Amino acid sequence: MTRLELTEKIVSTKISKGLTWKGLAAGIGPGSEIVYTAALLGQMVLTPGEAAKAGALLDLTEDEAKLLTFPPMRGAGVTMPPTDPLIYRFYELLQNYGTTWKALIEEEFGDGIMSAIDFSMTIEREPDPKGDRVKIGMSGKFLPFKRY
Amino acid sequence: MTRLELTEKIVSTKISKGLTWKGLAAGIGPGSEIVYTAALLGQMVLTPGEAAKAGALLDLTEDEAKLLTFPPMRGAGVTMPPTDPLIYRFYELLQNYGTTWKALIEEEFGDGIMSAIDFSMTIEREPDPKGDRVKIGMSGKFLPFKRY
Amino acid sequence: MTRLELTEKIVSTKISKGLTWKGLAAGIGPGSEIVYTAALLGQMVLTPGEAAKAGALLDLTEDEAKLLTFPPMRGAGVTMPPTDPLIYRFYELLQNYGTTWKALIEEEFGDGIMSAIDFSMTIEREPDPKGDRVKIGMSGKFLPFKRY
Amino acid sequence: MTRLELTEKIVSTKISKGLTWKGLAAGIGPGSEIVYTAALLGQMVLTPGEAAKAGALLDLTEDEAKLLTFPPMRGAGVTMPPTDPLIYRFYELLQNYGTTWKALIEEEFGDGIMSAIDFSMTIEREPDPKGDRVKIGMSGKFLPFKRY
Amino acid sequence: MTRLELTEKIVSTKISKGLTWKGLAAGIGPGSEIVYTAALLGQMVLTPGEAAKAGALLDLTEDEAKLLTFPPMRGAGVTMPPTDPLIYRFYELLQNYGTTWKALIEEEFGDGIMSAIDFSMTIEREPDPKGDRVKIGMSGKFLPFKRY
Amino acid sequence: MTRLELTEKIVSTKISKGLTWKGLAAGIGPGSEIVYTAALLGQMVLTPGEAAKAGALLDLTEDEAKLLTFPPMRGAGVTMPPTDPLIYRFYELLQNYGTTWKALIEEEFGDGIMSAIDFSMTIEREPDPKGDRVKIGMSGKFLPFKRY
Amino acid sequence: MTRLELTEKIVSTKISKGLTWKGLAAGIGPGSEIVYTAALLGQMVLTPGEAAKAGALLDLTEDEAKLLTFPPMRGAGVTMPPTDPLIYRFYELLQNYGTTWKALIEEEFGDGIMSAIDFSMTIEREPDPKGDRVKIGMSGKFLPFKRY
Amino acid sequence: MTRLELTEKIVSTKISKGLTWKGLAAGIGPGSEIVYTAALLGQMVLTPGEAAKAGALLDLTEDEAKLLTFPPMRGAGVTMPPTDPLIYRFYELLQNYGTTWKALIEEEFGDGIMSAIDFSMTIEREPDPKGDRVKIGMSGKFLPFKRY
Amino acid sequence: MTRLELTEKIVSTKISKGLTWKGLAAGIGPGSEIVYTAALLGQMVLTPGEAAKAGALLDLTEDEAKLLTFPPMRGAGVTMPPTDPLIYRFYELLQNYGTTWKALIEEEFGDGIMSAIDFSMTIEREPDPKGDRVKIGMSGKFLPFKRY
Amino acid sequence: MTRLELTEKIVSTKISKGLTWKGLAAGIGPGSEIVYTAALLGQMVLTPGEAAKAGALLDLTEDEAKLLTFPPMRGAGVTMPPTDPLIYRFYELLQNYGTTWKALIEEEFGDGIMSAIDFSMTIEREPDPKGDRVKIGMSGKFLPFKRY
Repeated sequence: MTRLELTEKIVSTKISKGLTWKGLAAGIGPGSEIVYTAALLGQMVLTPGEAAKAGALLDLTEDEAKLLTFPPMRGAGVTMPPTDPLIYRFYELLQNYGTTWKALIEEEFGDGIMSAIDFSMTIEREPDPKGDRVKIGMSGKFLPFKRY
Repeated sequence: MTRLELTEKIVSTKISKGLTWKGLAAGIGPGSEIVYTAALLGQMVLTPGEAAKAGALLDLTEDEAKLLTFPPMRGAGVTMPPTDPLIYRFYELLQNYGTTWKALIEEEFGDGIMSAIDFSMTIEREPDPKGDRVKIGMSGKFLPFKRY
Repeated sequence: MTRLELTEKIVSTKISKGLTWKGLAAGIGPGSEIVYTAALLGQMVLTPGEAAKAGALLDLTEDEAKLLTFPPMRGAGVTMPPTDPLIYRFYELLQNYGTTWKALIEEEFGDGIMSAIDFSMTIEREPDPKGDRVKIGMSGKFLPFKRY
Repeated sequence: MTRLELTEKIVSTKISKGLTWKGLAAGIGPGSEIVYTAALLGQMVLTPGEAAKAGALLDLTEDEAKLLTFPPMRGAGVTMPPTDPLIYRFYELLQNYGTTWKALIEEEFGDGIMSAIDFSMTIEREPDPKGDRVKIGMSGKFLPFKRY
Repeated sequence: MTRLELTEKIVSTKISKGLTWKGLAAGIGPGSEIVYTAALLGQMVLTPGEAAKAGALLDLTEDEAKLLTFPPMRGAGVTMPPTDPLIYRFYELLQNYGTTWKALIEEEFGDGIMSAIDFSMTIEREPDPKGDRVKIGMSGKFLPFKRY
Repeated sequence: MTRLELTEKIVSTKISKGLTWKGLAAGIGPGSEIVYTAALLGQMVLTPGEAAKAGALLDLTEDEAKLLTFPPMRGAGVTMPPTDPLIYRFYELLQNYGTTWKALIEEEFGDGIMSAIDFSMTIEREPDPKGDRVKIGMSGKFLPFKRY
Repeated sequence: MTRLELTEKIVSTKISKGLTWKGLAAGIGPGSEIVYTAALLGQMVLTPGEAAKAGALLDLTEDEAKLLTFPPMRGAGVTMPPTDPLIYRFYELLQNYGTTWKALIEEEFGDGIMSAIDFSMTIEREPDPKGDRVKIGMSGKFLPFKRY
Repeated sequence: MTRLELTEKIVSTKISKGLTWKGLAAGIGPGSEIVYTAALLGQMVLTPGEAAKAGALLDLTEDEAKLLTFPPMRGAGVTMPPTDPLIYRFYELLQNYGTTWKALIEEEFGDGIMSAIDFSMTIEREPDPKGDRVKIGMSGKFLPFKRY
Repeated sequence: MTRLELTEKIVSTKISKGLTWKGLAAGIGPGSEIVYTAALLGQMVLTPGEAAKAGALLDLTEDEAKLLTFPPMRGAGVTMPPTDPLIYRFYELLQNYGTTWKALIEEEFGDGIMSAIDFSMTIEREPDPKGDRVKIGMSGKFLPFKRY
Repeated sequence: MTRLELTEKIVSTKISKGLTWKGLAAGIGPGSEIVYTAALLGQMVLTPGEAAKAGALLDLTEDEAKLLTFPPMRGAGVTMPPTDPLIYRFYELLQNYGTTWKALIEEEFGDGIMSAIDFSMTIEREPDPKGDRVKIGMSGKFLPFKRY
């Protein structure tokens, strides 16, 4: 079984058993629901303990649960540019604001990047009388280009 | 003069006169430095009053300043996938977390998207003893798919 | 079963049972036949009640019907540019008139977009002695770019 | 002077002289502002009389005005997929609803297409207390595939 | 069974039973062998009567024969640019003569197109002592761009 | 001066002097207007004598006329897939009928191709009460794959 | 069974039975091992007699052997640009020398091409004390562009 | 002056002065006309002595001649897949025979490649009563994959 | 069984049996773990003796083990640009430093390349108090472009 | 002046003045010649002091020298896949060994990446009687994926 097939099985089982991503995350461990969901969708790893719990919740075999502990081929099975409107909006932000982010981060921090590895994020509901908003917080370590 | 040529002129003048994006933003108005920088980089509009101030700071002709008040062809001149490491990291986040964002936002809000139009954001320095971090905040209105 | 496989099954069953999209839509609920057809083709969601009716009409299992209530990966399985002449003509309109639509909508409404989410549409036959015409009506909320 | 260069000149002159697309259209003739704007943006033709009027309004040389009467290389200079959010939303509609349009038009009319050549359209403001809407009407002749 | 799978089955059965495209066409009806072959290759439709005959000749099930009467997703399964030399030569003609065809058709007919829908064609052997030639005849209705 | 620049100059001069492709062809020689137009559009060669006549008609310098006698980089400056509707329709024919052409030509002639080099064509107006038609004739030598 | 599946079966069987391409070619007929190998790899045809011998050597069914006598969709299943270093080197030669080949062939032969259909080739080992070399010979008929 | 601009100048001057590639090669040195033509077309280097002679023949400045001695960005300005029929035929050979070349070279030499660097080639006219042929000879060192 | 399917089986079996790449390499032979891992991942060959040991460790059939001794279609199944962050970083290095590597290698060695075939490499852990580092060593034979 | 234009000027001046990359690096500072060459080729930054020295060596204006101190749009003007053989070989290594590097680095270090930012490298000549070799050393900090 490949990781892509495992992801398909997880998505099917979740729907069939009436589970939610948040519920699954709560059952897997105390970590971020973003990390756990990403792992179940084939983009992050779980620890062996977390994988065992995920396996129990999702009726996985031992081998399938073990597969969740190996670094996946990240980005596999993802279409770019995104065809789904929800995902595309982030692509659009990047397309329209990317040069601005580069300009302002470099002006503030110097020549370097925001790490996408030493990185964490949150997604929250921001109540608003004119319609609730999606509030996203990102925090990535600034890495200066090494001079040598 | 096209908008792309105007952006090139603005970037050149900024360097030549020793200006900063933050300094330019402060001179243009009380709005977000992200909006103002994006406008100067050819991705957003300025009001006539803001454009006049930008024109004065950047030695633009009247026609050039006026051009800043027209909606640009957003995304023009931007390479995708990004070749620059700073911009690419956001593309990578999208590639690795896009399906996760979709899963969690839909579970919390229902079928819809986070607007990239009714949207605002901030970029800040987050001090950290192990190395300062780039802290990004995004807020976009949730828009449910219309049923009819 | 993935959503793409479910769409294939729905299309097969519809042909095999001699059903029509309009007939299916009428059997699913009072909503738009465009929304219902799009849902059956893997691009929109149904409510649980609608999904149950669709399932009955199309001999779906309970899990398959439930799958219709989850937001799909929109655009999955769609080729761009379209190879089919009927779909391509819309792509051609976009290619030839896109800049015109942008110019006229921005002149009338200001800097913003027509929402594709808070959006509805109709398709009708327009009788014409020189040959009937396809009449399409679209209505999308104008969303101004947020200034902040 | 190529047609692309002429389009750039027209856009510059329009801004410099403070003209609008609707105003230009009204000055060119009684036809649709969509057709006239598209012609000025390099996608449609004008008649010699219309071109002369457009030339007068936009300070074009005689050769430049004449160029407006020749069929352009349609679609030239247009990026696909669109990078501009306003134009992209139409691309998204096509990506998400294209198969639905095909299904419903074929069910109603038989095997054929909606012509993008024998085609007309309108763009209007649709007042709405929750926010005005963009109302688009399209009418294209149905063309059945010839059997022979 | 999808249309692509049906096409594969038809091609296999034709080889296995030692049939020819021309023979199949003659057995299906009095229409053009181009239309019939295209339908069997998944690009055109048959009438119910024609489909029944095709089904009998090719050992198709009733559902498979019915599938031949539905408009296919034209162009599906076709690689562009073509990798096969025979098909590529037409692509090359288009690449080398496309602008010429546009120039001459527009000069003769005005601003418009040759329809690919109200269209018929023939393929014949043209005997020639220096080597026989493939003779192709095409006839498509000229459609002028609508002015409105 | 490159060939692309020469083509742009020829197109400009033709419009400015009010010439037609057919008129130019008639002035260049007794050959096909398709060959001559293609040469002026940068896709075919002229003989020195033809080039001299073309140069006289189009106010070319001696070097520019000489350039018309050299094999061009065919296909240079042509966008694929075509964005122009007139040219696109041929692409669509190829996409929808390519496998059919292959099937029927191979069945008639054996394993080989229709040459796009030892090739000639005609474009004519075919009067029709329901609307005149574009009539295209192509003749290409059949080349069998060499067995060795 | 499609041709691609047949190619996979042939490759598997060849390895399993310990056969070589040269040995297979010698068993199929007196023709070139290049033609025979290409046919077994899905790019050329065999005569019925050759196909029967190939079928016997490779344990093919009668239908599978017959499939080898039909012109394949050439180029199917081939990745371009090539990812395999051996194949890529030819692509690199084309990229680096293509314009040179065009310049020299046209200077010697006039406006035309080297046929890839009326074409034969050889591959040999060229012993060399500094390391043996691959020696390739190609011979293609020169085809002049037809003037008409 | 970039190398691409230099190539354009060389091609222009060659035509203007009525030179040939073979004549230029003979004037540059005793080496292969393929190497010299490739160098003048921006794909290979000349020695300082050769560059001086090329400069004299083509009216180059000293800096331009010096530029010919630096390794160029090979492949720059070359379109792939080739749009020119003469160059495309080599691409087609690669697409149709690439896997065959790989199979036969590996069977003869083992796991490795034919070098495109330690490589030489010839192009000759092969007289033939049925039409002269282009005869190409290639010789590349076999390089085995290093085991370590 | 194709090589891609064999690679999938090997990866699955390795996880299921709790093996490591280094452990597998040690069991296969005294060669580089990079070569052995690449072979197991479908990119290099093993000798018959090595393949037999690999087969024993990974429960392969005799045919599967034999398949490991044949040169694979290198690069098959690899996505470019890489979507996985670990692999992408090398792509980024190439994008940002490629022209620099070319400039410095050519300045030092002359016109030629570093072979990727007569090539070896090492990957090691480089302890560092600020965080361990990945240390990579590459050694490729310099191949000068042949002059002839 | 854009950065791409500055890079072109630097390359021209270097050739015209007979400078070398190593010589330029030695004149700019004590840092790595790789960093300095990359900066002059538009991919890295110089400090103001270094830029002043580079400006003096290369006859740059003050504004041009200042431009060298700003982070460039890295990767701009670089073609991927590389068309130049020297650069392509690195792309090939990535294509053939990328999955191996991922497998071995993850096995040794855990889930994370080798940084391309906190990264240094060397290029050296490795004398070898069978032909000198290019020796490359890379050292990048290992960054583990953050768990949160």
